[in-house]
Amino acid sequence: MDQHQSETDTLRAIHLDQILLFGDSLTQWSFNPEIEGWGAFLSNSYVRKLDVVNRGFSGYNTEWCKHIIAPILRTVLPSPGAQIRLVTVFLGANDATLPFWPQQHVPLSAYRDNLHSIIASIRNFSSNTRILLITPPPIHEGKWQKHCGQKGRSINLSVSNTLQYRNACIEVAREAKVPLLDTWEVYFGEGATYNEEKADAVLSDGVHLANLGNRLLGHAVLAKILTEWPDLAPETLPTVMPLWDVLYGKVLPDALFP
Amino acid sequence: MDQHQSETDTLRAIHLDQILLFGDSLTQWSFNPEIEGWGAFLSNSYVRKLDVVNRGFSGYNTEWCKHIIAPILRTVLPSPGAQIRLVTVFLGANDATLPFWPQQHVPLSAYRDNLHSIIASIRNFSSNTRILLITPPPIHEGKWQKHCGQKGRSINLSVSNTLQYRNACIEVAREAKVPLLDTWEVYFGEGATYNEEKADAVLSDGVHLANLGNRLLGHAVLAKILTEWPDLAPETLPTVMPLWDVLYGKVLPDALFP
Repeated sequence: MDQHQSETDTLRAIHLDQILLFGDSLTQWSFNPEIEGWGAFLSNSYVRKLDVVNRGFSGYNTEWCKHIIAPILRTVLPSPGAQIRLVTVFLGANDATLPFWPQQHVPLSAYRDNLHSIIASIRNFSSNTRILLITPPPIHEGKWQKHCGQKGRSINLSVSNTLQYRNACIEVAREAKVPLLDTWEVYFGEGATYNEEKADAVLSDGVHLANLGNRLLGHAVLAKILTEWPDLAPETLPTVMPLWDVLYGKVLPDALFP
Repeated sequence: MDQHQSETDTLRAIHLDQILLFGDSLTQWSFNPEIEGWGAFLSNSYVRKLDVVNRGFSGYNTEWCKHIIAPILRTVLPSPGAQIRLVTVFLGANDATLPFWPQQHVPLSAYRDNLHSIIASIRNFSSNTRILLITPPPIHEGKWQKHCGQKGRSINLSVSNTLQYRNACIEVAREAKVPLLDTWEVYFGEGATYNEEKADAVLSDGVHLANLGNRLLGHAVLAKILTEWPDLAPETLPTVMPLWDVLYGKVLPDALFP
């Protein structure tokens, strides 16, 4: 590669900044088109603006996630100086399993500490990276009981216990001064009062999101971004590569790299 | 950062290799959950295996794309030595516009040359990167005529012309010894004979993919990968980070990085 080629390469880097989705199965499966995954919705909303990267780990709780956030942040970016503009942290659904299920259960105070640790790791990585904390969603006990029964297990979640983790998540956001999206408010409206019928409609197996749950969440995350950080609105961000209809008749390849 | 920390970081890099989706609007909008985008389907199929990165540019033809593939390949990967395992090249839908529409039209011979150039760029970047060429899909003239009419334009595509570009794409694949997925075969079955009713069912505005078109394409791309490159089958590839149910009772954080 000669010097001229190398200079041209530097000028013609086509990389996008990122939105990192960090969480458990509610994030891992968020690109599934069959359930209108909220991650795919964000990815589509930011196409040619930001890459939306999925780092969801099914079944994980904050006890495990606090150890992997820093290595992920350090190794997810493309080489030539791209930035992580936003991280969504969507954890607690597994922490909230009842104490008789130690495989995933994390005590409430440890959950709070772990969320703070994850936020600190992100801030330590980059002071420019925005953070959006998302509360663990409501569950539907009847549906989840059926699901657990089919696996020969007792039900290991309850609405009241998950509500405690949701409340703790809200407190952590307030303490750490991090914007928060409350899924209970998204699904139940202002006041966020539990409603079994609505929970039924937004959840598939009682824990994971059905189409309606994903659709509402995707739109709510985007709306929250627009409110909190107007500079991260898709229409505000530049589009990577010129739009096709300005290219006609222009000299190539220069017109592609204005 | 001391030496020990630095060594730990190296060991604890969490990055994924990539599948790069390169193309026009049929790729750009492939993560839209409302139309069950084929890109989102692939992304979901490879979650925790490979990152699926969208580099679709609406309206682009091969004349423009041949200049941007190399810079994209060089600047899409995360720093610590990840690989692009596969590139899908899905172009020609815009090249196939009729000559009276010079804004996007690319003559057939130039289309062929440009596809060869794009393939050469990928091979030049990495001899390990697999390439899947996808033919421009059939169109539906009635629907597209209506769409063009609403914009006050004459229809600028025809089934017979797009068929020539599809045939040229097949020839390029044969000449370059690159695996090919023929969308006409995906939508019309063996023999790939044009069928207006089926075209109607898989296309939204006569050019872009409706839900059925996306669903069939996503499954066909995955099936083609399984046939051509069994080592790229999602079930063959290792999952990033241990599954949650093996972590209970193990010493952290070491158990996360075996």
